[in-house]
Amino acid sequence: MSKYWSELIRGLNPYIPGEQPKDRKYIKLNTNENPYPPSPAVLEAIRKHTGKDLRLYPDPDGDILKAAIADYFQVDKKNVFVGNGSDEVLALAFITFFKQEKPILYPDITYSFYPVYSKFFEIEADIIPLTGDFRINLADYPVDNGGIIFPNPNAPTGRFLPLEQIESLLKRNTVSVVIIDEAYVDFGGESCISLIKNYPNLLAIQTLSKARSLAGMRVGYAVGSSELIDGLERAKNSFNSYTLDRLALVAATAAINDRFYFETTRRAIIATREWVVTELEKLDFEVVPSAANFVFIQHRNQKAEELFSALRQRGVLVRYFKMPRIDNHLRVTIGTDDEMQEFIRHLQAILSGS
Amino acid sequence: MSKYWSELIRGLNPYIPGEQPKDRKYIKLNTNENPYPPSPAVLEAIRKHTGKDLRLYPDPDGDILKAAIADYFQVDKKNVFVGNGSDEVLALAFITFFKQEKPILYPDITYSFYPVYSKFFEIEADIIPLTGDFRINLADYPVDNGGIIFPNPNAPTGRFLPLEQIESLLKRNTVSVVIIDEAYVDFGGESCISLIKNYPNLLAIQTLSKARSLAGMRVGYAVGSSELIDGLERAKNSFNSYTLDRLALVAATAAINDRFYFETTRRAIIATREWVVTELEKLDFEVVPSAANFVFIQHRNQKAEELFSALRQRGVLVRYFKMPRIDNHLRVTIGTDDEMQEFIRHLQAILSGS
Repeated sequence: MSKYWSELIRGLNPYIPGEQPKDRKYIKLNTNENPYPPSPAVLEAIRKHTGKDLRLYPDPDGDILKAAIADYFQVDKKNVFVGNGSDEVLALAFITFFKQEKPILYPDITYSFYPVYSKFFEIEADIIPLTGDFRINLADYPVDNGGIIFPNPNAPTGRFLPLEQIESLLKRNTVSVVIIDEAYVDFGGESCISLIKNYPNLLAIQTLSKARSLAGMRVGYAVGSSELIDGLERAKNSFNSYTLDRLALVAATAAINDRFYFETTRRAIIATREWVVTELEKLDFEVVPSAANFVFIQHRNQKAEELFSALRQRGVLVRYFKMPRIDNHLRVTIGTDDEMQEFIRHLQAILSGS
Repeated sequence: MSKYWSELIRGLNPYIPGEQPKDRKYIKLNTNENPYPPSPAVLEAIRKHTGKDLRLYPDPDGDILKAAIADYFQVDKKNVFVGNGSDEVLALAFITFFKQEKPILYPDITYSFYPVYSKFFEIEADIIPLTGDFRINLADYPVDNGGIIFPNPNAPTGRFLPLEQIESLLKRNTVSVVIIDEAYVDFGGESCISLIKNYPNLLAIQTLSKARSLAGMRVGYAVGSSELIDGLERAKNSFNSYTLDRLALVAATAAINDRFYFETTRRAIIATREWVVTELEKLDFEVVPSAANFVFIQHRNQKAEELFSALRQRGVLVRYFKMPRIDNHLRVTIGTDDEMQEFIRHLQAILSGS
């Protein structure tokens, strides 16, 4: 603590991202990155734009990327906002829509950045517990609120909530903004973007860090009614005019446009997940049904924290959250088939005590 | 305005950056970009890292870049903060240090993003007028304040304030944080970073967008005492963990490390500025003494707004601010010798009515 910090900054509990270790080579199953490289078209686009024009500011509106996203989802460019990773888009959405008198609502087990944003922007929150089997039950979300946010599929559980349930929430929750954080939607979920035209208070936020293999370039976006998008633009232009650099813009545009590569890699990850789940169940793990590129697992006998350490020692990084209700679970990113075979082999060895 | 926006967002007046026109090719002297391309070492570093690792998150701490900056300024890595352009660094500095009970202080003619940040973070400001000849007079800045910020050289005037005057401010202003925004310092000013070790409340903010020709990659940084830097890290990690992408990190590191290229290009720009000033004075312009990569000029007879339009029609973009005290001035970025010769030729033609 320093006397020079504002009172707000003193009171923060900043987000702690999964570790990015530099000490040795790991099988890295801890931050939900895509095991496949970005599309060759992405690398080609970056190479093509690596030149003298980097001396110039990028387009502050990111028009080229907005157009690609609009085309992909068959919406208008005015329905698209782009940002420096979906974390930045989420942060700007919090201040734009959630800084209200009434508390916002989100689940108790969810993306752990939400309470951090709330504190940063001085927004009250009411936490709504998941059901015993880690489901979001939208009937538990009262209409009198300052906004609602949850990931779908949820993180770190991986559970997907069907669109019909989101639509019935939207039918009664018409006054506050509902944000669906769809970081993992391409691994077995269904996007709510089809509902945008009927619900002006619905905002979908997606990222290029997961299904589009571009975590290293920091690009996220939101799709919603033009009035929601206009609000986000106001916030962004009061914080940082040029949030996406020239290479991030062309890389992300190429990633959105290469639909074949996207389909191929996301399906490969889903297929890997399916056999990994079978293997984990054979090893006495309970696996929460996942529509994401990770699985959330609990062993019937072994403590999660011990498994986490044993795996780490063997060069396999997974994610462990020392938090109420989930401190006996591990979140394991789906890697390549080879990586996951090795992960399973290490688990077998640890569990058999060899 | 939308009913879904928070009251804060409704009240904002977002920053409007200089135009990035797409309609035709201009001699672009409106956003203070560097006329020279980035160092070849920068392009080489980007090419080398354009590969499969872009699927992975970047280092959230940006250690490689912090180390290069620390080495350059002969400070510790703990004295360095990095961000997505100096605008982001400034925004985070406002919430970290300036969100206080007392109003902050900045000049009336200065970087027009400061009032925008103040409004975004609900910070009161007292505006201190420049002197008649556009000087910052620090004797006008009362000690009882929530923080002080100004660019040095100031923008859009280009005037530089000698370090002795900043040091005497720091001797009496010990309670609040003093931020010196050194975006243009490499074109004839002197950085206050040498004072950091003696004044724990001093923060210098610099950018790679100007003297290091990297506006397209969005990288800025702050140098200050470790307690100020820690505060900035808390704010950043409550907003967005991964603000700099993988290519921005390696590009910026290479730019900082290529000292020869940096020295050569910044000196070329200074030399161009010197003859441009002489030519402008011959054409009856008053030129504010500039230590920046732009000049702030006023013609003795012709209205600035008309000159701005006439230049634009001829394919030359400069910056015109329709604001009190400076609405008869133009800010003109220093381009290459060829660009500036053409700029002077166009002015001659406009002024002679041909």
